[in-house]
Amino acid sequence: MKQLVHSYDNYALSVSMTTRNPRPGEEEGKEYFFVDKKTFEDEIERDGLIEYASYCDNYYGTPKDYVQKQLERGKDVILEIEIQGALKVKKKFPTALLLFVMPPSAAELKKRLVGRGTESVEVIEKRLKRASEEAEGIEEYDFIVINDKLDECVARMHSLIQAAHDTPPRNEEFIENMRKELEAFR
Amino acid sequence: MKQLVHSYDNYALSVSMTTRNPRPGEEEGKEYFFVDKKTFEDEIERDGLIEYASYCDNYYGTPKDYVQKQLERGKDVILEIEIQGALKVKKKFPTALLLFVMPPSAAELKKRLVGRGTESVEVIEKRLKRASEEAEGIEEYDFIVINDKLDECVARMHSLIQAAHDTPPRNEEFIENMRKELEAFR
Repeated sequence: MKQLVHSYDNYALSVSMTTRNPRPGEEEGKEYFFVDKKTFEDEIERDGLIEYASYCDNYYGTPKDYVQKQLERGKDVILEIEIQGALKVKKKFPTALLLFVMPPSAAELKKRLVGRGTESVEVIEKRLKRASEEAEGIEEYDFIVINDKLDECVARMHSLIQAAHDTPPRNEEFIENMRKELEAFR
Repeated sequence: MKQLVHSYDNYALSVSMTTRNPRPGEEEGKEYFFVDKKTFEDEIERDGLIEYASYCDNYYGTPKDYVQKQLERGKDVILEIEIQGALKVKKKFPTALLLFVMPPSAAELKKRLVGRGTESVEVIEKRLKRASEEAEGIEEYDFIVINDKLDECVARMHSLIQAAHDTPPRNEEFIENMRKELEAFR
């Protein structure tokens, strides 16, 4: 996601709020807004989140303000979220595009999680189990993207997102204008 | 469509059968298979067409044999057909991709039809009226493609068709295999 946002100028990356602990090297407001459970639940209460979900014993959510500002600037806003949240966003915003990004194989997924060296065996097992559960919902997504070689994956994501701009539900105004023009020929 | 097929090596262009008269320069078996009404109706009878429709007082249809052979060779087969036929194909083949290709404006459409110099005023008026009717069904299509500059339009069509290859309904086998692998982590 970071490379996508850096490689093209039409994207904005939403920063999620979470109650999980920062991993080594993660910075407040960059990877996440790290908050305690009470603060997160206050944010739910004041309707400040587009979506939130519980994932592997922690809350994750998308603050509303930043996303709205970026959409108003004409940006394609990227939310890097799990499936419960993604489906909630799609329900609220039917023109949201859902990309299911996955490694080339289940074995490779495990290798990457272990290779990070930042997670306990318990957390890795929970995440692998969760990956299996998330795969149940894959038909709800618009596109499947295989993250094998990073550069190719980023270019592919860009191409898919730009393709989505040409679907009828994302061009209602254009369609309406075209129809009005064509009516003159009836 | 011709330029798309010539520019990339993964396409095959289906040749339709029609009862309309050839325009100057059109060759039998290249632009169309030109047949009389009786021959066309025999073809319907023997179930030799994937779809057929009546368009501006003539029959148009897609012979089945060629399309099946090309699909077996792994080609993306292009059918250049009107909306009735397109919707029938989509119903029979749910992974068919529907592209609505249109000029940048209704005025430009008229200009192109007149500019061809091959059609009578009566035929042009019928086609403009029909364009207006076809625009009613635009929401049934997957993508809208504006044909302004031909090179850009062809590149865009290619990009959209290739994007469609990454949707879940077109990757059922891959998804099933991934799920089986992931089940080991449950």
